[in-house]
Amino acid sequence: MLLHLCTWAEVEAYLKRSTGIIIPIGSTEQHGPNGLIGTDAICAEVFARAVGDAADALVAPTISVGMAQHHLGFPGSMTLRPSTLIAVIGDMVTSLSRHGFDRFFFINGHGGNVATVTAAFSEIYAENSLAPAGHNRPSIRCTLRNWYEAPAAKRLSRELFGGEEGSHATPSEVSVTFHAYPDAVKQAEMSPRVAPNGSFTDAADYRSRFPDGRIGSNPALASAAHGKTIMDAVVPDLVESYRAFLAA
Amino acid sequence: MLLHLCTWAEVEAYLKRSTGIIIPIGSTEQHGPNGLIGTDAICAEVFARAVGDAADALVAPTISVGMAQHHLGFPGSMTLRPSTLIAVIGDMVTSLSRHGFDRFFFINGHGGNVATVTAAFSEIYAENSLAPAGHNRPSIRCTLRNWYEAPAAKRLSRELFGGEEGSHATPSEVSVTFHAYPDAVKQAEMSPRVAPNGSFTDAADYRSRFPDGRIGSNPALASAAHGKTIMDAVVPDLVESYRAFLAA
Amino acid sequence: MLLHLCTWAEVEAYLKRSTGIIIPIGSTEQHGPNGLIGTDAICAEVFARAVGDAADALVAPTISVGMAQHHLGFPGSMTLRPSTLIAVIGDMVTSLSRHGFDRFFFINGHGGNVATVTAAFSEIYAENSLAPAGHNRPSIRCTLRNWYEAPAAKRLSRELFGGEEGSHATPSEVSVTFHAYPDAVKQAEMSPRVAPNGSFTDAADYRSRFPDGRIGSNPALASAAHGKTIMDAVVPDLVESYRAFLAA
Amino acid sequence: MLLHLCTWAEVEAYLKRSTGIIIPIGSTEQHGPNGLIGTDAICAEVFARAVGDAADALVAPTISVGMAQHHLGFPGSMTLRPSTLIAVIGDMVTSLSRHGFDRFFFINGHGGNVATVTAAFSEIYAENSLAPAGHNRPSIRCTLRNWYEAPAAKRLSRELFGGEEGSHATPSEVSVTFHAYPDAVKQAEMSPRVAPNGSFTDAADYRSRFPDGRIGSNPALASAAHGKTIMDAVVPDLVESYRAFLAA
Amino acid sequence: MLLHLCTWAEVEAYLKRSTGIIIPIGSTEQHGPNGLIGTDAICAEVFARAVGDAADALVAPTISVGMAQHHLGFPGSMTLRPSTLIAVIGDMVTSLSRHGFDRFFFINGHGGNVATVTAAFSEIYAENSLAPAGHNRPSIRCTLRNWYEAPAAKRLSRELFGGEEGSHATPSEVSVTFHAYPDAVKQAEMSPRVAPNGSFTDAADYRSRFPDGRIGSNPALASAAHGKTIMDAVVPDLVESYRAFLAA
Amino acid sequence: MLLHLCTWAEVEAYLKRSTGIIIPIGSTEQHGPNGLIGTDAICAEVFARAVGDAADALVAPTISVGMAQHHLGFPGSMTLRPSTLIAVIGDMVTSLSRHGFDRFFFINGHGGNVATVTAAFSEIYAENSLAPAGHNRPSIRCTLRNWYEAPAAKRLSRELFGGEEGSHATPSEVSVTFHAYPDAVKQAEMSPRVAPNGSFTDAADYRSRFPDGRIGSNPALASAAHGKTIMDAVVPDLVESYRAFLAA
Repeated sequence: MLLHLCTWAEVEAYLKRSTGIIIPIGSTEQHGPNGLIGTDAICAEVFARAVGDAADALVAPTISVGMAQHHLGFPGSMTLRPSTLIAVIGDMVTSLSRHGFDRFFFINGHGGNVATVTAAFSEIYAENSLAPAGHNRPSIRCTLRNWYEAPAAKRLSRELFGGEEGSHATPSEVSVTFHAYPDAVKQAEMSPRVAPNGSFTDAADYRSRFPDGRIGSNPALASAAHGKTIMDAVVPDLVESYRAFLAA
Repeated sequence: MLLHLCTWAEVEAYLKRSTGIIIPIGSTEQHGPNGLIGTDAICAEVFARAVGDAADALVAPTISVGMAQHHLGFPGSMTLRPSTLIAVIGDMVTSLSRHGFDRFFFINGHGGNVATVTAAFSEIYAENSLAPAGHNRPSIRCTLRNWYEAPAAKRLSRELFGGEEGSHATPSEVSVTFHAYPDAVKQAEMSPRVAPNGSFTDAADYRSRFPDGRIGSNPALASAAHGKTIMDAVVPDLVESYRAFLAA
Repeated sequence: MLLHLCTWAEVEAYLKRSTGIIIPIGSTEQHGPNGLIGTDAICAEVFARAVGDAADALVAPTISVGMAQHHLGFPGSMTLRPSTLIAVIGDMVTSLSRHGFDRFFFINGHGGNVATVTAAFSEIYAENSLAPAGHNRPSIRCTLRNWYEAPAAKRLSRELFGGEEGSHATPSEVSVTFHAYPDAVKQAEMSPRVAPNGSFTDAADYRSRFPDGRIGSNPALASAAHGKTIMDAVVPDLVESYRAFLAA
Repeated sequence: MLLHLCTWAEVEAYLKRSTGIIIPIGSTEQHGPNGLIGTDAICAEVFARAVGDAADALVAPTISVGMAQHHLGFPGSMTLRPSTLIAVIGDMVTSLSRHGFDRFFFINGHGGNVATVTAAFSEIYAENSLAPAGHNRPSIRCTLRNWYEAPAAKRLSRELFGGEEGSHATPSEVSVTFHAYPDAVKQAEMSPRVAPNGSFTDAADYRSRFPDGRIGSNPALASAAHGKTIMDAVVPDLVESYRAFLAA
Repeated sequence: MLLHLCTWAEVEAYLKRSTGIIIPIGSTEQHGPNGLIGTDAICAEVFARAVGDAADALVAPTISVGMAQHHLGFPGSMTLRPSTLIAVIGDMVTSLSRHGFDRFFFINGHGGNVATVTAAFSEIYAENSLAPAGHNRPSIRCTLRNWYEAPAAKRLSRELFGGEEGSHATPSEVSVTFHAYPDAVKQAEMSPRVAPNGSFTDAADYRSRFPDGRIGSNPALASAAHGKTIMDAVVPDLVESYRAFLAA
Repeated sequence: MLLHLCTWAEVEAYLKRSTGIIIPIGSTEQHGPNGLIGTDAICAEVFARAVGDAADALVAPTISVGMAQHHLGFPGSMTLRPSTLIAVIGDMVTSLSRHGFDRFFFINGHGGNVATVTAAFSEIYAENSLAPAGHNRPSIRCTLRNWYEAPAAKRLSRELFGGEEGSHATPSEVSVTFHAYPDAVKQAEMSPRVAPNGSFTDAADYRSRFPDGRIGSNPALASAAHGKTIMDAVVPDLVESYRAFLAA
């Protein structure tokens, strides 16, 4: 159930049976030689929609541009500064809380978002914690779940890609996007086959260490079929997480 | 050509033939009894994609949540504060300018965005204007085009809906979304048939003046067929605008 | 009735008969070869004072520096960034609302302010719209009126200056300042007689397109006498607007 | 020489003989039973203009609303938050520095501005101090002078008003405004004759300690004649300060 | 080598042999019935100083107040909002980078800081990543190390406290502070012996779930002797990390 | 009584007998040839602790990095921007006010902090002053006391150091740090014996005017013994100030 395809009256009705909402958050950043720039946003979105369908949960629009400053050395990458993303999440959550939503389940597709989104939650909670006694601010609860850390995602990564999963432009995430957008499947030679590992700081540093954009991965292993396998296995994990979150 | 479905190498190649990019911006807000909450974002997105196809232009991800504080009295509506949206647009444009993009063509679906997006452009330009002499900041150019103000859109609005177009939850925009998402077509009785007109301030004021969310419109006139008519006529107008913008 | 020339007790008495206030807003920016740098602030101020006299309305101090980043290529021009101006307007309106003012009528002399001031109003309203249920924030109403768009101003512009009004450093606005400050009347040759038209981005771009600062105008047509004509005709329009605003 | 009454070409010419500028800064706040709400802005402005005339210095538009949060318990008072005023001063100084101004002489009429304006100067300098080596930011110098602390102002305060000068709504400042605006001279009984002294925090605290707005003063002693005496004596002090500042 | 006990000439000399610096960061928040409010700051500080001594590294002053909004339900707890802490870290790192420091090794004592400090690093890097081509900003590298996640810390936690370590007000951290401040050792009965586990949102939520402040721990097991054991074992781990960081 | 060495239950008990707290604030900046970079923070801290002991007052952690942009030309100096420091003080005071603290006594060791900290207090008060009628924000009171302006400090400065006290890197403050940290006493030749006086703007300007960092002082006169004399005399002054502040 997509918020964007509802009328306000349908949302009003939904709120009578649930105060939870799923918010997909991704990124717009290079994903190596054959990965799509929208990989993280696409993954977050397709998982969120599938979970929304399975759990009768409302799904908000995807936050497509995340915190990806380190990818700016590659054409097409975009970032919000952490301070901007904190403001965005604050405004979105506050908007929805006005209607009675109080359980915000973010499905995340990008490791680079984790720290900033977590800080954004604290910024929101801090408004309550610093408010004068007797305030009338609603009590809300936010959580961030990385689809690629769901138990099934980790298991399948090992089974399908072994030591070639890596941590950026992984065959798992590329597979999910190939399944979602079969017309956008790309081919590219990987050289070296498996990309180097390591840490990074800013965009120039990242590009010098990871010249084609990948970290530790071999996304030539990706396929739409693997993507379907991953989707089918991971969605139930996320549904269970969502239900547990509502019940907490 | 969607940025999200490209690899970074494809964007690098694109930049050799064009430094323009289209950025759709909409809103997530109530659109009356039968309009979708995503109406403005959906319209911006479908027009942007069609223009991108017709003009071989890259299309960035849609800014789905805009400045819609006045709609917060209706469940499901979301807003960014103007100051937040200014930061978002600044970060997005700055990110892309790093790669060599210098013509930013925003296709807008929401009147409430106009002032803030225009202010955001000035905030970006001001960085250049206030920079010390001899700075190396790139010169860029941004523009905002409201699809519903294209000549064809205004003409068709008159022809198809006459005095019942109104200014919010209009049959034109609802038609475009029904064409884009035929499975999401909604039916609702309009009472009164044509909504009242007027101005508004904050969310409580808006809701008290426009109890079902519409302003001056009768969106019961909307249909997917009308949406197709509008799309077919408006896209060439926007393509022409985009080409003129690149040439300016 | 100028706020600056009242005591607080007089303001307290005023609030018993009206909760409206007029706030002039202008700019400090080049106005071509013979226009004053204070043109926009002067116009806003003299119209505001005349309206205040005619409508028994309190007039706040003039916001003299507006959003004029594009004029910074010419000596003497000053700007506030949009984000700064948004903060200024927010603080001013909030200050006055604490005393019971709830109708804020901005008389504007500068096109470059429109987007940012409109965004500032939304930023103020958003505080209410995003506030938790049961908040005790006052309901207020702001409006921005450009004196040069009053019906009489547009009519006189056509009658007096025809196709040589242009859009910056216009003979209309220069005339009003010459009427207000007859000792500051300047002479300058205009070359070309009528300045070019066009759009612009940042200060460098503006200066390269409009080398003497004018856009589309021939301010050599300006005179104090024309200024008096314009004042006499436009003030009643603004008075009527103000009264209608109070009644809305 | 008022910036507002110059053309940009005149400012360009001025910059060939001087890079100094005077910026008056006041406040919009209650000044007791007979003092004008604009007292501090009026004083700053009239002193700035007189100094500008005497020293052939350019005078920028007056910052009319300052930091006056503690006066908000009295109708008509307005404040900028310190953070807003810091942004305003930063934008104004940066704008002017782009043209080559590098000596900013603020003439201040309000004690409540001192800390914030001083902090604003540090915020500006910090941009240089924190800039990477080899930056091309201009070196500028700002100073704040309180007219009421000029030697002549302190001497005349003692001679004319002795122990009844106080520290807010003083007979000195009220006299200067009565001299400047003889039509706005007000009469009011002072009870007690001399107001209490003390410190304060927020607006509620201030109002409870100083019920008619004065601190330690008896402004019934004010007169336009005294205002003239003060003006005549203080302007030369400020002119000397300004010249020394330019030479430093 | 403490920055606070050096002269600037000594820092200048240090920079010739190293461009690394250690910055301890803690928090000021309740630590259960017998833990000190300064626990996290004290731990970060004593580890940082010991590492500084062992590795000839300069140690900056401790950031004593961190991100601890969730503890504000207990008297004495203090927090910086995430946005404030991001600004603080940005200013501190930028200040030091001006002198040539380019390796910033934060030793952290508080889990609640991790997300915000990581976001702060990204905010700093983003300045470089978003800067125009050809900028002269220095390349720097920041890292955050939680002393309690050093291998020796995790091993000793298991050996000394088994399942009673928990995650807040742990016997490990309390022991370190008792070792550092033997005069401040406190006794308190723990009821229940081991505190409950769980997640939390804002301060009210935290206090309702964890009524005495602990999470999952039994800090009655803490002792100064255990603290010494932990210090002796963990410092070499951190020294090794620091050296590897400098070499990276 | 140091906040950092208390449990939350001890703070809860303290609040039953007092709602006052002492917050030391210093700076991290060069202090000339023999002064410590931590001089201002050390002085603030040792005075605060002594006053806390003498007056049974709780002492918060020291704000070690202050507003010192002008010292950034010397290695090891650090600054917060004024806007950052304003945010820090706001968050700290708001945190503590949530627990019932309402008297905030800042003991300051650095002249460069005065304006910004004073502005920070106004920023805090402004939240109350601008709040809607009927708000439930607590009424609080903040004050800043510079230890070096205590009567005994000024008297001893004259007696011990006469005309060689100066205004930065003074023998008084250096003496206090030498008393506090006898192992950190430094020797350095002063050339010239007494440093020049003058004003300054940014870091480059400061360094060019005061090449070894001192202003007007001869800190070769400093000694731990003088430091003890100063401590012994100044603490009672500050205790008296603190008691008067609580009673006000």
